[in-house]
Amino acid sequence: MKRPLILITNDDGDTANGINVLTRLMMQIGDVVVMAPDGARSGQSNAITVSHPLRYTKIEEREGLVRYKSNGTPTDCVKLALHDILDRKPDLLVSGINHGSNAAINIIYSGTMGAVLEGCENGITSIGFSICNHSYNADFSIFEKYILQITQETLKNGLPYGTCLNVNAPQGEIKGIRIARQCKGNWTEEYAKRIDPQDRTYFWLTGYFKNHEPEAHDTDEWALANGYISIVPSKIDLTDYNMVKSLQNWEL
Amino acid sequence: MKRPLILITNDDGDTANGINVLTRLMMQIGDVVVMAPDGARSGQSNAITVSHPLRYTKIEEREGLVRYKSNGTPTDCVKLALHDILDRKPDLLVSGINHGSNAAINIIYSGTMGAVLEGCENGITSIGFSICNHSYNADFSIFEKYILQITQETLKNGLPYGTCLNVNAPQGEIKGIRIARQCKGNWTEEYAKRIDPQDRTYFWLTGYFKNHEPEAHDTDEWALANGYISIVPSKIDLTDYNMVKSLQNWEL
Repeated sequence: MKRPLILITNDDGDTANGINVLTRLMMQIGDVVVMAPDGARSGQSNAITVSHPLRYTKIEEREGLVRYKSNGTPTDCVKLALHDILDRKPDLLVSGINHGSNAAINIIYSGTMGAVLEGCENGITSIGFSICNHSYNADFSIFEKYILQITQETLKNGLPYGTCLNVNAPQGEIKGIRIARQCKGNWTEEYAKRIDPQDRTYFWLTGYFKNHEPEAHDTDEWALANGYISIVPSKIDLTDYNMVKSLQNWEL
Repeated sequence: MKRPLILITNDDGDTANGINVLTRLMMQIGDVVVMAPDGARSGQSNAITVSHPLRYTKIEEREGLVRYKSNGTPTDCVKLALHDILDRKPDLLVSGINHGSNAAINIIYSGTMGAVLEGCENGITSIGFSICNHSYNADFSIFEKYILQITQETLKNGLPYGTCLNVNAPQGEIKGIRIARQCKGNWTEEYAKRIDPQDRTYFWLTGYFKNHEPEAHDTDEWALANGYISIVPSKIDLTDYNMVKSLQNWEL
């Protein structure tokens, strides 16, 4: 059987540990093409670059692996790879391993998951991997065997068009895997407000996640807080189908 | 009855015609606070700024209206307004009027809709308005009465937590309103590949939308192509609930 063609990207940039671990793992499964941002692009969501020219360069080529980096966002990286590099649609797109959680509402801000939604839109089986540890030196070793298992099982079963997987791992020991739903919650902003040497006010985004349903056991936040990997199947179709029916009764 | 407090933003920047039309309309309904990006932020999705300081300045204040602009993304604008400007949660957030369609998959790239999802996450009734005309001089006049009607009906009925409205109008005559679902489709990238004076290759994003279901009559794309305004109720919960069940049968 032909080895699968696997496209890899992330939002922490081409030198992050997470993408290098993911690349090593994926080379056990298939032929790998990496197209990563040339630096940190955290919080870039599905942003696309329209105001300045995009460029990319090849940074490594060896048996089973070609690596590129680009000045674009994670979503740009996927588009550039599909349009200008790959001869055929890849069999799989994986993004990450993100240094930091992309569970719950974080999915809508995440550049890592933006790339996954982009792959999904293009009909590619797509998975995002993240770990609940922001540090550069996050330890991915316990997560590794699960990444291989989840990837191989996904390649075997496939995913329906428009659905991708958002996989998050807790720090430290892992008890197993939970299929979960996206936990309800919001970020409570606590901007750090500072004064610069010219006496002008400026702000840095900080804040914390407020879980709206801490008692629910079927959410990604619960799984992570209790030592399990969470897998949330996630859709690019945002339609609220129940509400479509309700709106028919409005006076419009 | 107290006049509603309405927060307005967009992704075309504070000088765009669209946001100024929307501001004029909303002043008929409530007290208005505008916090808009200080220039174009198209395609910024739910991007948040973490790599440079955010700032904002007041640019106008008069009876029933205060306007600010910020160097942030549309999502930053909402966060800044909620955190540092407004004394209470607004009764309504409206974003736009976007110069260009945000129907179908465009919702995931749109800065206009990013701001709407941000408002929605924060429990605010939120609506995005867009028109299928990219030009600076897009004519919003026919759309205006519908914007007022949709806004007032939404204030009257409310929206459940986690659901917002994505409203798009066709160019020219409008036959009426259709409640719709997000059309399936993807952007087929056709990067413009160019060579700069230093002989280096660079790329501009172009491309076109490929409708996967042109025959379906219940989609936003169909409504717009047939002269109707489309309203798609859209969720910040991306979970594919059917797939949650299927995944339980995988070997994980």
